[in-house]
Amino acid sequence: MDAYTPTERSEVRRLPKRAVYDKDLVYSILDAGYVCHVGFVAGGQPYVIPTGYARAGDRLYIHGSPASRMLRALGQGAEVSLAVTLLDGFVLARSAFHHSMNYRSVVMFAKASLVTDPAEKLEALRAFTEHVWPGRWAEVRQPNERELSATTVLALPLDEASAKVRTGPPIDDEADYSLPVWAGVVPVGMELGEPVADERVLPGVAAIDTERFRRG
Amino acid sequence: MDAYTPTERSEVRRLPKRAVYDKDLVYSILDAGYVCHVGFVAGGQPYVIPTGYARAGDRLYIHGSPASRMLRALGQGAEVSLAVTLLDGFVLARSAFHHSMNYRSVVMFAKASLVTDPAEKLEALRAFTEHVWPGRWAEVRQPNERELSATTVLALPLDEASAKVRTGPPIDDEADYSLPVWAGVVPVGMELGEPVADERVLPGVAAIDTERFRRG
Repeated sequence: MDAYTPTERSEVRRLPKRAVYDKDLVYSILDAGYVCHVGFVAGGQPYVIPTGYARAGDRLYIHGSPASRMLRALGQGAEVSLAVTLLDGFVLARSAFHHSMNYRSVVMFAKASLVTDPAEKLEALRAFTEHVWPGRWAEVRQPNERELSATTVLALPLDEASAKVRTGPPIDDEADYSLPVWAGVVPVGMELGEPVADERVLPGVAAIDTERFRRG
Repeated sequence: MDAYTPTERSEVRRLPKRAVYDKDLVYSILDAGYVCHVGFVAGGQPYVIPTGYARAGDRLYIHGSPASRMLRALGQGAEVSLAVTLLDGFVLARSAFHHSMNYRSVVMFAKASLVTDPAEKLEALRAFTEHVWPGRWAEVRQPNERELSATTVLALPLDEASAKVRTGPPIDDEADYSLPVWAGVVPVGMELGEPVADERVLPGVAAIDTERFRRG
């Protein structure tokens, strides 16, 4: 098992029995999510910003406009903390205190670096598209020079990360098991709605196949 | 319309046309979410940690163990940035560049304060339970003295916040509308699975009614 070594900042302190440092698990959580939350410090002030991302190998990529306050701060080598959280279920216990959620989360720490190599930048942009909708990259118009210049891509090395996972039923106090209260887990997942075609899709173009969609 | 005044840190800089400072919208996004991401600085290092939350009036509450590194740092008056993000759809354009997501997000800034008033603390704990499953508080065993002592509750005033919202179809470059590519929005929502009863639920106890569940 390939695993991360917990560091001072990446070690899970609370409920350490839920902590997992296995790289494959960390990767699987990252690959199942769509939105990450990026934390950084600017002028002594913490900021948390949601954004899309994609993983390729042991690097996590985020992207945006060169004018982005976040990307400018991060591209200058600021320390980043980044989290991806998947909600898997509501855990309903017999006492209010033991209510919980089932989830999988990753928290990583890294310094971001600006991706300047054109091949890596294109590969990262391909990863963003394929992350959401596998096969899409080959179907659409790929980025031109102007669009590449108008996109900043940052890479974060995935070498300091931890996962936290809760699964299973509620754990109640022994005395509470005699209460006549329903307890258990209500699973939660992501559901795709009926695709809404843009008004200007050309006649004869096949509707999108949502079966191709990679579910988390 | 009751609105937040954008500050240096809460003003949305990127894509300001997506920014909304309306309090009702901010509240509705917070009330529809389940997990927030809390950003803070400890020892000069940014941290982002996912956690549950609940809103009551113009305060947002988070809670956890008194041993939590995050809650200890925050309870001492550290600056907090907190984000809640709801993913609403995948926006598939005719070019890779114009792919996007529909979403609603809130980013807020505040100093947290420890909730020490027993009545407010109990009210916050009630809000956590009711936020996830309305009506649950009255059905379950409420917190005892030991559990109240074992729970730290922090309040964050909701007076510096902004929302960001994207809705609607992809916006393609005019030339790309002639491409024979499907484009549009695939809506995304949260789906509840079949409840899984705990093994020790007493005979005769009615199954949980998922219709009571508040969907985002």
